[in-house]
Amino acid sequence: MKNIRVAVAGCGTVGAQFIRILRQRRAALLQKTGLRFDLVAAADAAPEKKPLTGPPFFTDVHRMLRETEVDILVELIGGLQPAYSLVKTALSQGKSVVTANKALLSEHGEELMNLAAEKRVYLGFEASVGGAIPIIKTVRESFVGTSIKRMLAILNGTTNYILSRMSLEGMEFAHALEKARKQGYAEANPALDLCGVDTAHKLGILIRYLFHKIISWREIPVEGIEQLSQLDIVYARELGYRVKLLALADTRSGVLDARVHPALLPANHLLALVEDVYNAIYLEGDLIGRSLLFGEGAGGKAAASAVVADVVEIGLKLRQGGFASLRWPENKVLSLMDSADSLSRCYLRFTAVDRPGVLASIAQILGQNNISIASVIQKQENPRQAVPIVMLTHQASEKSFRQALKSIDALKAIRQPTVRLRLVE
Amino acid sequence: MKNIRVAVAGCGTVGAQFIRILRQRRAALLQKTGLRFDLVAAADAAPEKKPLTGPPFFTDVHRMLRETEVDILVELIGGLQPAYSLVKTALSQGKSVVTANKALLSEHGEELMNLAAEKRVYLGFEASVGGAIPIIKTVRESFVGTSIKRMLAILNGTTNYILSRMSLEGMEFAHALEKARKQGYAEANPALDLCGVDTAHKLGILIRYLFHKIISWREIPVEGIEQLSQLDIVYARELGYRVKLLALADTRSGVLDARVHPALLPANHLLALVEDVYNAIYLEGDLIGRSLLFGEGAGGKAAASAVVADVVEIGLKLRQGGFASLRWPENKVLSLMDSADSLSRCYLRFTAVDRPGVLASIAQILGQNNISIASVIQKQENPRQAVPIVMLTHQASEKSFRQALKSIDALKAIRQPTVRLRLVE
Repeated sequence: MKNIRVAVAGCGTVGAQFIRILRQRRAALLQKTGLRFDLVAAADAAPEKKPLTGPPFFTDVHRMLRETEVDILVELIGGLQPAYSLVKTALSQGKSVVTANKALLSEHGEELMNLAAEKRVYLGFEASVGGAIPIIKTVRESFVGTSIKRMLAILNGTTNYILSRMSLEGMEFAHALEKARKQGYAEANPALDLCGVDTAHKLGILIRYLFHKIISWREIPVEGIEQLSQLDIVYARELGYRVKLLALADTRSGVLDARVHPALLPANHLLALVEDVYNAIYLEGDLIGRSLLFGEGAGGKAAASAVVADVVEIGLKLRQGGFASLRWPENKVLSLMDSADSLSRCYLRFTAVDRPGVLASIAQILGQNNISIASVIQKQENPRQAVPIVMLTHQASEKSFRQALKSIDALKAIRQPTVRLRLVE
Repeated sequence: MKNIRVAVAGCGTVGAQFIRILRQRRAALLQKTGLRFDLVAAADAAPEKKPLTGPPFFTDVHRMLRETEVDILVELIGGLQPAYSLVKTALSQGKSVVTANKALLSEHGEELMNLAAEKRVYLGFEASVGGAIPIIKTVRESFVGTSIKRMLAILNGTTNYILSRMSLEGMEFAHALEKARKQGYAEANPALDLCGVDTAHKLGILIRYLFHKIISWREIPVEGIEQLSQLDIVYARELGYRVKLLALADTRSGVLDARVHPALLPANHLLALVEDVYNAIYLEGDLIGRSLLFGEGAGGKAAASAVVADVVEIGLKLRQGGFASLRWPENKVLSLMDSADSLSRCYLRFTAVDRPGVLASIAQILGQNNISIASVIQKQENPRQAVPIVMLTHQASEKSFRQALKSIDALKAIRQPTVRLRLVE
């Protein structure tokens, strides 16, 4: 087989880029692979998305699949429906599929992967996590011999852009979000990004390949960045830290500690330098030591680059006549850590009236909960108002922190709920 | 085919690790791939390298190949002979080969790749560049749709370790080298590392896949780190830069500017944070934007991890019954930049007697050669001796710098050859 027939469902940002690349780089791809990639159909529910020139266009994605002979279906619609039924139909018919749809994979990934394996076709989804970063291929193929122990990652471009503006330009959250919108880095409704769920979707997908554990994103404790104040970012910087929205997965204790939350990273950590819409994934493993992959996590070109890689891989496998995907049986032994047991150092900001004994009361409650203090900053910012007291603690359990802060926030001298951010190293 | 027969030539650091991994992770690899990887023979010219338990052992690598039926030959001998004749024989006989041998690939890579293609077998060499970093696979497969414009990389662990000691602990070069030796990070004869040739070998291999250009490492201008003084590292740090031995390849001007030399990187550049024996490769491309891969560049485990990945890939392809490697025809258009034309900003350190008019003379000669000064530091370190004058320049050509420094170093007031380091951003 020399001609590979490709159909695209969804002609939005990524779809339009993919169509452009497949057309413009036909010669280069032919030269590199010996294959001709033919775009045989495109579909989008919105008729105005029809490419100016090109193959037959459909507004019904199912109809496109029924009426076109394809080798590879590229699903770039996003969301659950009609993406789910379309991908399922294509796989059932023995067609390979490439998708960038992390929501779809989070909900139905296991079913779709099993269907692809059963039908001996390929389901490519490199573009669903980390944009142009080849994290899926790297973990499945390049690190096949290694046992991954821990992952830290920045997986959401929108929130990282907002945190960069707050940190580098001193913007408040609302202002930074507004700027992200203007730059096209935040969707009209950015709620899934801001509350951390988009990051949890991606973390769930990665955990499947990092630790062979099947996990729903709903099992992952998630905190977003909506409550972050500029004040905390400034204090963190003063203490030598940067604030990032992190996806974490750690098996060093024998159970899987998986979570998504904003965290303080030391300023000399490789992830601390990841600014704007960039993503990065940091891994620790028994053969590879420490490893980092950094790249554009958002944008049509970056995602389309990953889609092209999957399409080419399938093309080459079709020419060879088959698929020998790596099998990844589930790890039945690894259990999920109870989030109350998870250990971390924390940054705490108390807002207290400036009167004698307040610091003593706070310190006493922390001590009663087995939380010891590593350092304290107290500044007399405005003596008439409540003052911020900032602490870095040593390591303690989630449960201890929750109990301690409940007691502390009940003190009369405490005027606002205490801010708590975890430190990650 | 379910059993893949693997033979290893060379049982040194990487070879011993590879043998250990293949044995210890047999079950895990079977689970992930459905394949059994059997170590059927090992060879090393040194009889004391014989593994304690294991398959038949040979001290003659050619004899091992003659007397053993293998699917994959793993060449971890290093150096040109007998590695070259062994790999060539194996490929000629239709056996796939995995090698970590950058010297071999630098000298005979093109011939061996062509032989592998002709015989329809696979030559894997991920471990030859960047240790555990999957740079070959990423460029060939994941970035197949993108056009790479520029690469900056730290590719030698020994020199990076020495530079880290000089920068972080204030050691002089000789002391840092001694420490690298004690830690096992420098070979008995580290000349190829220190003078930059090892880095040039790896750069030559990468250029083949980044730009489809066949280039000998001998065509790449190379400077090592032997002449670097602690003084320059301190000044660089004061100016907000870190000194790294870089491999550069840049096609943005339409020709290929390839070089290896120590360079000043801004402290907030991702590569500036790469310390100790770690390696990193930074890429700019038209779809991917900016990308970075970071990982362990040296050590038996990291290299063995990359060898295992190649072995598994070949095993899966053997099961499918064939190889559909990407073809990479040579780019006949791209020509190599004349190194005299290459443009850069520079750091200059003059050692001059402290008398009136010296700075004026230096500035005048620079001006005559179209080199303009961005900043100057002159410190009265010891008024009786010659004083260092440090400058950062704006961009100028290599030719201009050479001419200017020739004239400046001929001045009576200049007491030592001027130190010049390039700035890279």
